[in-house]
Order: sequence, then C-alpha cells, then structure tokens
Amino acid sequence: MERRVPTKDEVLAYLKEDRNWGRWGDDDQLGAVNMITQEKRVEAAGMVKTGRAISLSREFPSIPAPNNPTPAIHYMKKVYRSPTSGFSADYYGISYHGTATTHLDALCHVWDENGMWNGRNPDEQITMDGAQWGAVHHWKEGLITRGVLLDVPKHRGGAYVTMDTPIHGWELEDIVKEQGVEMRPGDALLVYGGREIWNADGNPIWGSDPLARPGLHMSCLRFIRESDICLLGWDMMDHTPNGYDLSWAVHGSIFAYGIGLLDNALLQPLAEACAEEGRSEFMITINPLRVVGGTGSPVNPVAIL
Amino acid sequence: MERRVPTKDEVLAYLKEDRNWGRWGDDDQLGAVNMITQEKRVEAAGMVKTGRAISLSREFPSIPAPNNPTPAIHYMKKVYRSPTSGFSADYYGISYHGTATTHLDALCHVWDENGMWNGRNPDEQITMDGAQWGAVHHWKEGLITRGVLLDVPKHRGGAYVTMDTPIHGWELEDIVKEQGVEMRPGDALLVYGGREIWNADGNPIWGSDPLARPGLHMSCLRFIRESDICLLGWDMMDHTPNGYDLSWAVHGSIFAYGIGLLDNALLQPLAEACAEEGRSEFMITINPLRVVGGTGSPVNPVAIL
Amino acid sequence: MERRVPTKDEVLAYLKEDRNWGRWGDDDQLGAVNMITQEKRVEAAGMVKTGRAISLSREFPSIPAPNNPTPAIHYMKKVYRSPTSGFSADYYGISYHGTATTHLDALCHVWDENGMWNGRNPDEQITMDGAQWGAVHHWKEGLITRGVLLDVPKHRGGAYVTMDTPIHGWELEDIVKEQGVEMRPGDALLVYGGREIWNADGNPIWGSDPLARPGLHMSCLRFIRESDICLLGWDMMDHTPNGYDLSWAVHGSIFAYGIGLLDNALLQPLAEACAEEGRSEFMITINPLRVVGGTGSPVNPVAIL
Amino acid sequence: MERRVPTKDEVLAYLKEDRNWGRWGDDDQLGAVNMITQEKRVEAAGMVKTGRAISLSREFPSIPAPNNPTPAIHYMKKVYRSPTSGFSADYYGISYHGTATTHLDALCHVWDENGMWNGRNPDEQITMDGAQWGAVHHWKEGLITRGVLLDVPKHRGGAYVTMDTPIHGWELEDIVKEQGVEMRPGDALLVYGGREIWNADGNPIWGSDPLARPGLHMSCLRFIRESDICLLGWDMMDHTPNGYDLSWAVHGSIFAYGIGLLDNALLQPLAEACAEEGRSEFMITINPLRVVGGTGSPVNPVAIL
Repeated sequence: MERRVPTKDEVLAYLKEDRNWGRWGDDDQLGAVNMITQEKRVEAAGMVKTGRAISLSREFPSIPAPNNPTPAIHYMKKVYRSPTSGFSADYYGISYHGTATTHLDALCHVWDENGMWNGRNPDEQITMDGAQWGAVHHWKEGLITRGVLLDVPKHRGGAYVTMDTPIHGWELEDIVKEQGVEMRPGDALLVYGGREIWNADGNPIWGSDPLARPGLHMSCLRFIRESDICLLGWDMMDHTPNGYDLSWAVHGSIFAYGIGLLDNALLQPLAEACAEEGRSEFMITINPLRVVGGTGSPVNPVAIL
Repeated sequence: MERRVPTKDEVLAYLKEDRNWGRWGDDDQLGAVNMITQEKRVEAAGMVKTGRAISLSREFPSIPAPNNPTPAIHYMKKVYRSPTSGFSADYYGISYHGTATTHLDALCHVWDENGMWNGRNPDEQITMDGAQWGAVHHWKEGLITRGVLLDVPKHRGGAYVTMDTPIHGWELEDIVKEQGVEMRPGDALLVYGGREIWNADGNPIWGSDPLARPGLHMSCLRFIRESDICLLGWDMMDHTPNGYDLSWAVHGSIFAYGIGLLDNALLQPLAEACAEEGRSEFMITINPLRVVGGTGSPVNPVAIL
Repeated sequence: MERRVPTKDEVLAYLKEDRNWGRWGDDDQLGAVNMITQEKRVEAAGMVKTGRAISLSREFPSIPAPNNPTPAIHYMKKVYRSPTSGFSADYYGISYHGTATTHLDALCHVWDENGMWNGRNPDEQITMDGAQWGAVHHWKEGLITRGVLLDVPKHRGGAYVTMDTPIHGWELEDIVKEQGVEMRPGDALLVYGGREIWNADGNPIWGSDPLARPGLHMSCLRFIRESDICLLGWDMMDHTPNGYDLSWAVHGSIFAYGIGLLDNALLQPLAEACAEEGRSEFMITINPLRVVGGTGSPVNPVAIL
Repeated sequence: MERRVPTKDEVLAYLKEDRNWGRWGDDDQLGAVNMITQEKRVEAAGMVKTGRAISLSREFPSIPAPNNPTPAIHYMKKVYRSPTSGFSADYYGISYHGTATTHLDALCHVWDENGMWNGRNPDEQITMDGAQWGAVHHWKEGLITRGVLLDVPKHRGGAYVTMDTPIHGWELEDIVKEQGVEMRPGDALLVYGGREIWNADGNPIWGSDPLARPGLHMSCLRFIRESDICLLGWDMMDHTPNGYDLSWAVHGSIFAYGIGLLDNALLQPLAEACAEEGRSEFMITINPLRVVGGTGSPVNPVAIL
C-alpha cells in the first residue's frame, strides 16, 4: 500500500469499485458476516488459550455528557410479594447510535448516493416499522469469530491518536507485521486509538466536538477491504471531519463491504491484556439483541484470550 | 435423589441450609459465576466441535400479547446528511423481566425473608439509582461457559411439559444419565420444556395465565444445587403456582445459590440441533449489557456446538 | 333529521360532500378550531356560573389492562442535595392513542382515500420527524370554548349504551331539545355513553374487544356537521364494528370537518354535576402539550360550570 | 417591605416561621390551591375581556441543548388500515423537571430538613410507585384562577434580568403598584424576567450554567407569602447560586407555603399582549396530566385575556 493520502477519486473508488455487492448473492442481508462459517467459529474457539475474559463495552450511558446528548434511561421498580419477599426490576431506554454507547451497526444503518448494502433503496427500506433490509436480526447468531487487536499508540510510542495524526491504512499494515499477526477472512478487526487516555489527558471528551474527532482516516478503507474482515471495532471511530466532504468515511464500509461496525468499543483493557499476554488474537463474541428491523444493537462484546 | 415431591420444610431447607452464602466471601457479588474461571472458559471453548451457532433469544417483544402486558418499544428515525445519503437509527425501550423477553436475572433480582444474595437487605440495596448489591454489571465479562441442554420432552416421548406433569429434580438426574452427559461445576444448565410447541398446540400462550404455567417443580432445587451450576436457562421457568405458597420457587436459586437465570430462553432450535448432532454440551455465550446497578439484562445468548 | 340508519352512499357523502375543506383557506391547519374566536372565548367564560370544576381525564394509564395493551410508563427518581434536602422527579412515557388514555386527536391523526384534512397526502406529510400537516402544535392556544354535554343514558332511562343500541344522530337531536340547550358554532360537544357503568356492570372492559365496542353510530356524522362544533368528546367513541366496512366512522370528522376528538374522556362526573346543577353547558379547557409535529396529546380537560 | 437583602436567618424564618402547614388541615394535600374555590374560578372567568388566548408553554423539548441534557423523545408511527386509509400516532417520553420543559411542580417535588409539605417525611412518601403525599393528581381539577403578570424588564427599562440584578421582593411590590393591579388570595403570579431576550442576546442559553442563572432572589419569598398566591410561574426561576448556601431558595415556596410552581413558563408573548392591551390580569388555565403519584406534569398553560 502506498504511504500517501488517497485522492477523493480514489476513496470514492474504494467505496464503489471495491464493494462486495453481489458477492454473496443479490438478496444477501448478512454481508461480510457470511464469512463467519462454522469453520470460522471453530477457528475462533481455537484462539482461547488462557481463558481471560475482557468486556469491550463502556458502561450503559445514562449520564448526560458532552458526547452523550441523548442519554439512555434507567429506572427502577421494587415490588413486594410479601412484607419480606419481592423483586427488583428496571426499565432501559436507549437511542444507542452516536458517540456514547458501545453498539453494533447493522447493514441498514448508513447509505450514500449508491444506496444501501447490496444496492437497496433507503427510501423504501427504512420505515417506521423498522428496517426492511439489512436489519440486525439477520445476525441473530451473533458475531463470534477470531478477533485481532491493532494497538496504534503502542506502535507509535504515544498515548493516543490526535487530530494531527490520524490512523492511516499503511500504518495498520505496519502494525500487523510488527505485532506478528496475520489478518484472515471473516476476522473482527479492533483498532485501539487510546480514547480513554485522550479523555483523561484534558482533551474535550472524545465525541463531543464533531469538528475535532481524531480516528481512522479514509485511507484505512483499502486495508479494511483487503483484510476481508467482517467487523471493525474501534474506540475512536472516523477521523472527523474526514477531509473529503463526504457524508461517510470509514463508516462507508457498512454499505460498501457489508461489514459490521462496533462503535465506541472500550479497547484499553483489551490492549493492556494483549500486551501482558504478548498476543494480538483472541475469540470475540458480539451478541446483538434480536430486534426485528433494528438498525443495530447496544452490545457488551467480550473477548476471550 | 428420592423420587418424591419434597415437603415444604424440605424446600425451605434447600433454600436456606444449602445456600452458598459466604462460599466466595461475604462481600462477593458474583455468586456461582465465580466458577467461570479462566480454566472453565478454556473448557467451554473446547466444547466447540462443528461451529454451528444457535440463538437462544426470542424476538425483541414489541408486540402486545397475553404474556407481554408491557411490550418493549421500538421506534425509528431516518436522518439525511444530503439528499442521497443518510442513516437510520432507532430507540429501544424495555422492561424485560416477566414472561416475554429473553433475559438474564442478576443476583439482586429477588429475595425472601432471609434477604438477598449473601444476606444483604433489599430495603437498603434496591434504590432508585439502581441495585447497590448483586447488580448485573458485576458480570460484565459475560457468562461464557460450558452449556448442557436437558431435553425433557424427548426423554418423556411427549411434546411439552404440562401442568399435570411438572419437571422434577429426579427426572433431570435421569435425563443427564440418559443423554450420557455429566454436569460439572460452573456449567450453564438449559432445561427444554417445549414452550414453542405448547403455544402452537392451542394452549393459552405460555406465561399469560399466572395460575397455569407448567415448568420446573421446586424438587429441581436440589439437583440445581448439587450440580453446582452457575446459570439455569429455561423456556418454561417455574411451575406456577408452585404448590408451597412460597413467593419464590426455583427462582430462589438466585438468592440462595448465587445462580443467574436465563428466563424465557428460546430452546427449541438448540434442542433440535443437539438431537441432530447427537450431543448435549456446547459453549454458551451470554453477554449482558453493562448497566451499572441493573437488575439483569435483555440478552441474545448464543450456543456454539 | 330522518330517523333511519343512513346507507353507505349517504355516509360516504357525509364525509366527502359535506366536508369543510377550503372553508378556512386551502392552507388552513386549524380546522373547525378556527371557530374558537376571541368572541367565542368570551362566550365560554360567560358559561361559568357556580365555578365548579370537573376533570374529564381518566388516570394516566400505567397499569396493563385488556383495553390498554401498551401501558404508559411512570418511573421515579429521588435525588438528595444534602442528607435532609432533595427532590423527587419522574419520567412519563406514553403512546396515548387507543382506548385507554384521555387524549386529543389532532387533524393529522387519520385519513381515508381522499386524504388528510384539507386534502393533504399522508405519504408526504407523516414523517419520522413528526406530522408536517395538521399537527397538534397549531392548537397551542388550547381549545377553550363553550361545552355542551348530552347525556344519552339519562335520556334513555338506562345506564349505558350497548352494542344493540348505538347512539344515533337523531337521538342527539332529541337530547338537545330535551335538555333545553342549543348547539352553537365552535362549541365542544361531549356525548356521555355510560362507560364507567358499563365497566362496573360486568361487561368486558370497554375498548378491550374491537368487535364489540358500543358507541356513536355513523348516523351521528350529520348531527356533528350541522352543529358546526369544533370538538367532539366521548367516553365510548365509535360504535365498532361500524357496519359499513369503512376504515373510519365518526373518527372521519377529523379529516372531513376539521374537528378535534377528545377520546376516552371521563364524562360520568360531569354528567352527574350537570344533573345536579340542572344544566348542560359550561366552559371547557383542553390544553394540549405543545409538541411540534405531534399527532395529538394526552390531556386533562377541565370543565368549569 | 424593607429594601434590603435579608439575612440567612431571615430567609430561614420565611421558610419555617411563615409556612402554611396546618392552615388547611394536617392531612391537606392541596396546599395553597385550596384557595381556588368555586368563587375564585368565577372571579377568574370574569377576567376574560377580549378573549385573546396566549400559550405559556415552550415547545416540547426533544432537541438536545445546553439547558436540556436529557431531551424528551418523540417518535412516530404510521399505520395503514387499507392502502389509502390509516392513522398516525406517536410516543412521548419525558423527564420534565429541570430547565427545559414548561411544567408544573407538585407539592411533593422538594423538601428540606423540615420535611415535605405539611411536615411529611420524604423517605417514607417518595417511593418507586410514585409520591404518596402531595402528588399532582390531587390537583386534577387544574389550576384555573386569576393570573397576574409582573413585567420586570418593562419596570426596569431593560431587556432582561441579569446575574448582577436579581429580582427582589420589594421590586415586585413596586411593580404591582406601578402596574395598578392588586394581588388577591389564590391568584397565580407570573414574573417575567426576559429569558427569550437573554437567550437571543448572546448569553449562554438560560439554564445551561448552574453557576450563572439570573432570576428571583430569596427576598421574593416574603412577597410570595404575603400575596397569598397559589401558583408562581416564571421564566427565569431561582437566582442561582442563591447566595445563602441553601438547597432551596424560592423553590422552597412549594414545601413551605404549599404553592405550585410553573417552571420554564414562556412569558414573553403574554408580556407583549398585556402591554398591548394595557392590563396585567387575566384568566389562567393550567391542566396537569392526571398522573397518580406524579411529582408534577408537563403542561401547556393558557392565559385568556
């Protein structure tokens, strides 16, 4: 891969020429998750060595914050069945897209002028009754596959990615080699950018400023496509503004390649565990709620090392 | 195990004398999930043979039904970033306890006159800010362990459990032997009762009549405790009324043994898959949302065979 | 008015030929509420004689019931500012249309093959961002006008309307005369059918059976139109099934005449007060929440005698 | 009234010595609303002269903003009954206390070290099932009374109240005289501070900064108590910080005097109408949702001139 920022024509070609439409049939609604075959799951289970488990989920975001303008709600009930016996219950309400909740994006989540995944028309498919195409319930068996973490700050020797130093595709290539791991079709790629340390270091809470969100540059699209992954998990998400005046940058992987996105993943604990165990690969389990017509799901992904 | 229905004194002793309080320390909030050690997860991964994945979740219950008096809500938004690009998003709202949603009960969910798990006082611990003891976030690494399915209708030669024929503890013992499997500490036990076929067979929707819910008899408590499981998943749940005039029947496993419950699990597809593959054990992944203070979580458990 | 049930052609003519489209301009979104002029409000205030106030609202329907398949939610918070000072707050969530909540229908709420109020197209006007035509915020000044209660059971000598004896238009005419009141343009008409007594008398909760809801027959449409009212409030609503195989019966007043509907009004207390005071007219105040794009609003209408 | 800022001892005395506890009985839950007698409503109706109606409600706050950290939700459904007929409906969800929503505070809303209204204990009365004391449903007949608007900017010759110039009690006295109006028992007092102009003038959105909210000084408590009003409506609310290190400033009127508060009222249009009509008094109608156990209600108050 060339070590230069692609032109706008090149990134448009990444999204249009390199797309996976039709690869698994014109009526396919699974996308790259088709690559999580039974064999792939066996491979994933084979990644489990020490059995250490790490949650990749941030806490359920019920507290207002600059990056959380529409907080989730959590309300309690306590019900007595007798003076000394009873139960507690609660209500969860959440609009999970955005920059606060760890969540999975389904294939229906985004589209550009070419349409949704596999060329469908959002005006027809996105209805008040839910998404009629590419909804999350098609992934009801979960995304349980081999995961690979690429640790950008460790590679760079810094603490976190900044606006001046977005993550580039060739850098991911370098990290793969440096970490001595390989990408395989159907993998889940997790790119750690150092969001927790960014936040702790006095920067505006990551996600609060739509004009200053460091993350993955569109040059990563090519790496993503060539790696043939089924899922991209990231703590810092798209470098925003993307610099090309395009509605969708790396998020375009959803409609172009049929890839699921794990937005706002909590990756620092996993990065630390991988560093301690001297490894980059593991089994990852992402089990979205089975919402018919849903555009994604809040999730608690768990990596097992 | 004696093949007789226990007396009230006996079931009270199951819940009080046999309890696990203090077993993992007086301040423990993990309960039987402590048995999901790193080694246990390695054992679980070793269960994966064919890589077949089965969702154990019913659909997100947004449709009113006799067993679903407070349906979940699912509302959509479609937002354009340009005339031809945009995204869809949605809102999920749910009170998941009850008989409609596939969900995990945390240790704080129920209590009797002896208190909550490890003897805590619900009047102090269950607050409007969430459960201060035994909340679901303590299980943030998920319950990923070895699962064992016991297929009661297959054993009996019938289609589903009825009010006249509740599931008894000695029957579970028989099924374990018959299926040629063994229970091990830290396992997840799934008991299939035939709920889907019950519903399809013209009975009132399971869960709609609180005076006629076939399921597991309190005689199962002893089997549960002796099996030393960390989770019980069930489609038909407690045989109700329980016949002992007690607030909690098998649900008492939560506060007495520190066991998680996977209520309203969808077990028919797994039962069919196990029958096809001639096996009873597998890896199960239950990843609750990381809700601080939550009393449980809607989940999409996935079994990998 | 003829004392016979109209033919289907006649009721279709009520909805199409007699409609108010264009009466207040082609771009009008207030409908019959235009008749609540400043003079009308002065007239309404003049109705206040004894100052007795009656709520016409049922309780906020947070309890599941056969007529309430999607209950409202009400959750509490208690927040301390110091060990001895603080505040309580709550969350209200409601889908208020249906047969449980006392609510106001805005002009955008229903349509038939001729379209919405003033001929607008629902496919264009009803969006995920709210109703773009005939939404409730156009009535932000409230519906404060002269109200007239017609007491059907009192007229009949019975306790409540039944499926066999729907309320007919000529009957409303009779009651107006019998009660010695007159209808005037811009009035709010309240038709009491005896719902509370129906419920108390062992019938299925009113609203629970869509095939057996006693109420106003389509023959009332003509009376409604000729009375030139701006609002119809009713406890028993449309006689359902309507007997004409039409999507909308008296509810068609919304799109045809531009009339607001006050569904599930609690009218028994008002009927009793009117009987006690020997009167049929009063001031009514209906203050919908100012929801931009809303299709109506839960309300607590208050009548002042 | 002395023209000086009261000492802390004096304001504590306002809240404790001058309180209305027991005035309408020890078990009273209506508070000052008891003064809205039938006669008072007749007086209110007599205020209606021109019939002009003004909404005092801000728009339903579904858009995130610095003063609206937990926005209300508004979601739509469109349901077809045939290809050409159907209805639209929506879901409203709101936590209305705070600085964004026009809402009514019930008597249960706040307390200090002396307790809730009439001396009740919040630890006992505020439960997950709602407020058991002083809840909003006790005001189900609405607050329909004589309203008086005091226009502070007009009096001062400025555009809005600032942090340096809080509204003082003696100033309200002056304005009453200047406007040639009188306060009467059971009135609703509306104090206009110029919030809309404050916002438009480049200041931080009113309510967004808890350390800089201009409004009514605690010196107003005495005026409030002596006026014997039943409701205080205000656009700018408590001057915050209150300067006395007390949990509750003018909000203490709720528990001390049994007065309802109409928070975040939209008063500019009413101020303009009063100026145009050369008057200060009118009928006001505040109809809270009939929520059993509710701590208040979002409302759309309407003034009729």
